[in-house]
Amino acid sequence: MNQIILEEKFLRMIKEDLGSGDITTELIPNSDVKAEIIVKEDCIISGVYELKTLFNLFNIQVHKSAGDAKAVEKQQRIFLLSGKVHDILLVERTALNILSRMSGITSLTQDFVLTARKKNPRIRVAATRKTTPLFGYFEKKAVKLGGGDPHRHTLSDMILIKDNHLKLFGDVRKAIRKAKKESVTHKIEIEVNTIRDAITAAEEKTDTIMLDNMTVEQVKETISQLKEKNLRDAVLIEVSGGITLENISQYASCEPDIISVGMLTHSAKSKDFSFRIL
Amino acid sequence: MNQIILEEKFLRMIKEDLGSGDITTELIPNSDVKAEIIVKEDCIISGVYELKTLFNLFNIQVHKSAGDAKAVEKQQRIFLLSGKVHDILLVERTALNILSRMSGITSLTQDFVLTARKKNPRIRVAATRKTTPLFGYFEKKAVKLGGGDPHRHTLSDMILIKDNHLKLFGDVRKAIRKAKKESVTHKIEIEVNTIRDAITAAEEKTDTIMLDNMTVEQVKETISQLKEKNLRDAVLIEVSGGITLENISQYASCEPDIISVGMLTHSAKSKDFSFRIL
Amino acid sequence: MNQIILEEKFLRMIKEDLGSGDITTELIPNSDVKAEIIVKEDCIISGVYELKTLFNLFNIQVHKSAGDAKAVEKQQRIFLLSGKVHDILLVERTALNILSRMSGITSLTQDFVLTARKKNPRIRVAATRKTTPLFGYFEKKAVKLGGGDPHRHTLSDMILIKDNHLKLFGDVRKAIRKAKKESVTHKIEIEVNTIRDAITAAEEKTDTIMLDNMTVEQVKETISQLKEKNLRDAVLIEVSGGITLENISQYASCEPDIISVGMLTHSAKSKDFSFRIL
Amino acid sequence: MNQIILEEKFLRMIKEDLGSGDITTELIPNSDVKAEIIVKEDCIISGVYELKTLFNLFNIQVHKSAGDAKAVEKQQRIFLLSGKVHDILLVERTALNILSRMSGITSLTQDFVLTARKKNPRIRVAATRKTTPLFGYFEKKAVKLGGGDPHRHTLSDMILIKDNHLKLFGDVRKAIRKAKKESVTHKIEIEVNTIRDAITAAEEKTDTIMLDNMTVEQVKETISQLKEKNLRDAVLIEVSGGITLENISQYASCEPDIISVGMLTHSAKSKDFSFRIL
Amino acid sequence: MNQIILEEKFLRMIKEDLGSGDITTELIPNSDVKAEIIVKEDCIISGVYELKTLFNLFNIQVHKSAGDAKAVEKQQRIFLLSGKVHDILLVERTALNILSRMSGITSLTQDFVLTARKKNPRIRVAATRKTTPLFGYFEKKAVKLGGGDPHRHTLSDMILIKDNHLKLFGDVRKAIRKAKKESVTHKIEIEVNTIRDAITAAEEKTDTIMLDNMTVEQVKETISQLKEKNLRDAVLIEVSGGITLENISQYASCEPDIISVGMLTHSAKSKDFSFRIL
Amino acid sequence: MNQIILEEKFLRMIKEDLGSGDITTELIPNSDVKAEIIVKEDCIISGVYELKTLFNLFNIQVHKSAGDAKAVEKQQRIFLLSGKVHDILLVERTALNILSRMSGITSLTQDFVLTARKKNPRIRVAATRKTTPLFGYFEKKAVKLGGGDPHRHTLSDMILIKDNHLKLFGDVRKAIRKAKKESVTHKIEIEVNTIRDAITAAEEKTDTIMLDNMTVEQVKETISQLKEKNLRDAVLIEVSGGITLENISQYASCEPDIISVGMLTHSAKSKDFSFRIL
Repeated sequence: MNQIILEEKFLRMIKEDLGSGDITTELIPNSDVKAEIIVKEDCIISGVYELKTLFNLFNIQVHKSAGDAKAVEKQQRIFLLSGKVHDILLVERTALNILSRMSGITSLTQDFVLTARKKNPRIRVAATRKTTPLFGYFEKKAVKLGGGDPHRHTLSDMILIKDNHLKLFGDVRKAIRKAKKESVTHKIEIEVNTIRDAITAAEEKTDTIMLDNMTVEQVKETISQLKEKNLRDAVLIEVSGGITLENISQYASCEPDIISVGMLTHSAKSKDFSFRIL
Repeated sequence: MNQIILEEKFLRMIKEDLGSGDITTELIPNSDVKAEIIVKEDCIISGVYELKTLFNLFNIQVHKSAGDAKAVEKQQRIFLLSGKVHDILLVERTALNILSRMSGITSLTQDFVLTARKKNPRIRVAATRKTTPLFGYFEKKAVKLGGGDPHRHTLSDMILIKDNHLKLFGDVRKAIRKAKKESVTHKIEIEVNTIRDAITAAEEKTDTIMLDNMTVEQVKETISQLKEKNLRDAVLIEVSGGITLENISQYASCEPDIISVGMLTHSAKSKDFSFRIL
Repeated sequence: MNQIILEEKFLRMIKEDLGSGDITTELIPNSDVKAEIIVKEDCIISGVYELKTLFNLFNIQVHKSAGDAKAVEKQQRIFLLSGKVHDILLVERTALNILSRMSGITSLTQDFVLTARKKNPRIRVAATRKTTPLFGYFEKKAVKLGGGDPHRHTLSDMILIKDNHLKLFGDVRKAIRKAKKESVTHKIEIEVNTIRDAITAAEEKTDTIMLDNMTVEQVKETISQLKEKNLRDAVLIEVSGGITLENISQYASCEPDIISVGMLTHSAKSKDFSFRIL
Repeated sequence: MNQIILEEKFLRMIKEDLGSGDITTELIPNSDVKAEIIVKEDCIISGVYELKTLFNLFNIQVHKSAGDAKAVEKQQRIFLLSGKVHDILLVERTALNILSRMSGITSLTQDFVLTARKKNPRIRVAATRKTTPLFGYFEKKAVKLGGGDPHRHTLSDMILIKDNHLKLFGDVRKAIRKAKKESVTHKIEIEVNTIRDAITAAEEKTDTIMLDNMTVEQVKETISQLKEKNLRDAVLIEVSGGITLENISQYASCEPDIISVGMLTHSAKSKDFSFRIL
Repeated sequence: MNQIILEEKFLRMIKEDLGSGDITTELIPNSDVKAEIIVKEDCIISGVYELKTLFNLFNIQVHKSAGDAKAVEKQQRIFLLSGKVHDILLVERTALNILSRMSGITSLTQDFVLTARKKNPRIRVAATRKTTPLFGYFEKKAVKLGGGDPHRHTLSDMILIKDNHLKLFGDVRKAIRKAKKESVTHKIEIEVNTIRDAITAAEEKTDTIMLDNMTVEQVKETISQLKEKNLRDAVLIEVSGGITLENISQYASCEPDIISVGMLTHSAKSKDFSFRIL
Repeated sequence: MNQIILEEKFLRMIKEDLGSGDITTELIPNSDVKAEIIVKEDCIISGVYELKTLFNLFNIQVHKSAGDAKAVEKQQRIFLLSGKVHDILLVERTALNILSRMSGITSLTQDFVLTARKKNPRIRVAATRKTTPLFGYFEKKAVKLGGGDPHRHTLSDMILIKDNHLKLFGDVRKAIRKAKKESVTHKIEIEVNTIRDAITAAEEKTDTIMLDNMTVEQVKETISQLKEKNLRDAVLIEVSGGITLENISQYASCEPDIISVGMLTHSAKSKDFSFRIL
């Protein structure tokens, strides 16, 4: 995202963390210092571009930095910085909170991607909208840097007809026809739970079919029937619901196009970093 | 937090999730519907007050709801709602994202609290500032509902002299004296790594001493020496760094006053809920 | 758009128009009055939903209102309102400015749509991003109510590779391949100026091909060659550049899928309405 | 307007146009490029100062630019720019939308001004508040650059008693007396439809009288009667309602001071520009 | 000011005062209570309309309230309220801060007005722009309720050529001519320090002449010379600089139209009120 | 406060003061000028850091400036500036309004501090929350620069149980116990009116006791009884209510720790400065 646009978001973050003032740091004279960020565990880092933008906004110079999406080792220096100590300590915690969350997501995404691609080198691992409110940009960016697909950022990115919508449309056929009539700008995806609905969706030429909460066998069978009816190639197949590092290989071997994984953004463990004034 | 104040935050969340429009839901007529939120796993829930405020902002009626900080069982209905389907589907994902994150943190906090209190019934388990930027209010509230202590919300809540500050103050004694001279409004806490510094801090009458990254034995020894010197009762002792569900009992049995745990807010697994139009 | 979200936009509009106070109206006691909005020329109106939301925000009751996208006749009453005179005169001008601009666009769009569909009943007439900054939502909504297609609302709605992008990608084939590799969420459209590029784009399975600034003959020839190569059915064809009410029939008869028309939003004449305290 | 203040407005425009990201441009490496803006038709341009501010905000260098309010010829280069391609393509459309709308208004205003001044070299052609919500600053500035008078920017600029106010004041005399008693800071203008009211207004020493929707003959007669009563010189006369390029000469020859024209801002045709990466 | 517009300002005030939460009040159950505001000294109150709007925003019912601009006596009840105790204690201090500041200004303004009008019943006492940043609306409103004139709210209210502008215009004549040529919408006032400049300004038909920092004798002499030259009646005379309760009578008796007094807004003593839960 | 954070506040101030444009200054070409700020009376100045930040935001160079909290003499130059005249005149009034208010508060605070310390060199003079809404930061900063203590900035700074809270807690003992159970992060202060309640509060180990609206004799007696019971040393004693420059010595000689004075922020007279283009 453009730096000017990001800056506004950072300003809001820092203001919220600041309260009415950094009453500890104000006790210290505002001298020039150097500082570094060290990673405390092996991982794939992300958030480097974002932190550079944050540091720049607060007039903190970045002398060295590791690269986004790179594997780093415990104790490796990720950033070498210099600036006024009041500025540096003001942004310290927010910087670490972004870096540790993003790196946690990027590392977990890479695990999922590597595991899935062993069985199916062309599979895409995608995120969902199960993101932290107001922090979704950072989480989706972290997924992307881990080799995943960010999927929808917002409700306006694509038409995605989910089970709750379907109850109100009546049936799959009507839903897709309504959607196709409405928009030539957006892709149409529909969530289905049965093979029958998957076939109907393919017949109606939806762009993508999400097979939701199906077992590995059901996914296999669905794809097999779509192939038989010559409907497989014209649609993308996305598998969703209950995907873990343990079962993703099996789903990947069914040869869908996309596997979406909520836990990439809702349950990744943060990575540990520390911030040191030198 | 006051509902009027929260509403502004919710508006920002929904706008960010909305993009230029909910292009799927706009395909459906805006009829009146009922809906429910079901929990998909046993847990302690939180976020109920917040969701009520969110629903109220979007003119969605709450007919029934479970209580904040209550243990709920898989498949239990947490909310029964009614309203316009366009409003309901607009807030659905944001509502679930708040509920699942907060409940994850509340449940994990309660695990920590119950484990620690088996050994030491008066111990407080506290959060840190390792929160998600712009989402900290929700995470701290979830900690509190799980029986934990939110600790600092912002940099203006208390004077907390950390290792980076200490390098610039010179030594513990100078730092505390400077802080005491500056403020009669805020408590003073100082982070130390050695017994010697802990004793100095207690001599200088800091309010709280944070024993950072010490082993169980070091914590024990520090507290024992403070007792010998009659310095224990006038200060609060906080243990911090590397605390897990596995080791918290041991630390608790050293009889500090507070144990702070970063993972409450940075690495809790979300709880699973589903949202159904009825 | 959701009323809660729209309200924020209206508040900003009214504040900007208000300055430091409505110094004329403040001279009058704040009595309860009735008021009406009358249309001064035959047209297709739009903006009714938006004005209802605006009036509701300022506690103005709407007793009667005409329907969005309806043909209305000179001197017809569009709104009958009641409320405090200070509120009514505060929003008067903003309400009329929205109504007259939106109705102008809706009426013009309908002219284009009816003209084009005489030759080709399935053609879509689409808007462009040539909208007024900060007022685009209203303009796109007006296009839709006139039977047109809003096309992209923002830069994140679809991948649209224009001539300036193409210079940096190198060629059409590389551009589409890069785009397809990047995203499974968004449609891909590419702007081309030659038949050769159109064919390449179709071969690469782009979703939509925009034939930019081509003559009627060039459009015909391009579509004919795509048909010969069996590439026509799998893509959408959009014609763009220099379309007027005079030439749209000819383009429509070439049987593209979409004709996009900048002037719908950048050069429609406003319709005339008047606001009367009764 | 001060650049710092304008920047905030531009940031809002760009954010609204951006959505969740410029998904097309992000496919291209962020290289340094040159670009130009070319005008596609003869016109009087405006918006140059505004675009310079916008480009500067996004770190785009302006190497050459045409002057505001200058006549330019088809194919003339208006801007020569350099910067990062991601920044340039981010602001491209917003820049063109501002430039084309402002230049359209400036060109039309100049037509009105030149036409009116042939008959009456001292006449002022003024805009109205029929502006696009949130875009009024740009439209009023464009009027001014075309030789017109921006008239009221907001409701706090002057006391302007219109027909709707008059119904509530009771009569012209009471209205002006109330206004004069209230304020020594603002000018007072009153809209009248009859000669009788115009004379009363002049007797009450209003600053300006707006003759609304009068025929050329009525305007003439009103001014003639005011002269007879020695009331003409102490007031400004503004003619308003239904003014077009066709009839403005006739109104101008009646020798009012100001002719206000709604269509300057509500129905000007945009001018055409193109943006090219070099 | 319209309540909807005021609400946004109040929300910002309360948020700023709230910090991360009202940690004292949150200790108490959120019960329904009654409360009252009592005035602790005789004065003229103002801020009643504003407080009603604030209370309404936070769902606090106003059962009784005194009237704006009324004389009240020590111990008189100004408001009787009921609502949730959390809401009431949240707004308490902000409400009192507004009420006490506004009432202080209103009372002081009335003192100045009454004193000045003893000598000259038609004199206006006006405020200046020496207001508290972001609180000017409340201060100007308080001046008005005390019988004073708010004068300019913002830099766009009138053309006021001050000494700093004059240095850049060159001389009084040029300045006024430039201003008159530029705008027919705004009044023109010019600040002068000499009789000669005052006469020039009147000759150039400025609307208002500000006699800045002149002695009583100089003001008298200036007005006398303007009368001699038949220039007095066509301009307003404003006296400004160093006006106090002690000297205002003397200035008033020179028969200027307006006396502006900075201390109305920059140095009024607040009035004392107390807020009691019943 | 960090400059980046302050800038947002300044931008809001300037926008509010600007209205739709500085219509006077826009008449002048935007040339480069020098300017100075002169103090017009002896005082202790403050606001220098804030004005530097404001000037820097608007690209105005500060060549020389006096120091914050310094005693300055009538006619002393406080700032020497250079920049574009449009920028300088845009911020002039806001700059002076900040400087004169802050300096007024700083000067008054120093008077209180010096007077009180003659009797009791260790006494702290503190501000209250009786600040101007949205301007509190500047007022508290001014108190601090005058040698005073800012006390609570917001409701989240400390637990301060006032009389209105006490009515709902029931009694002092319950209130303090509830507060101590709730928070280990914040200090607890309680307002009492009787000696008995002061003793209870000390027994319950509150951090601070505020003796509200007590006479000098009552304060003496309370402190004496606390000493007798050996409760004096463990608490801070704050005296509040009705403190003036006349009586502060007497209260100070009772040897409380803190005396809080509302009038520091609610009724200080502004200091006079002038701004001159050179």
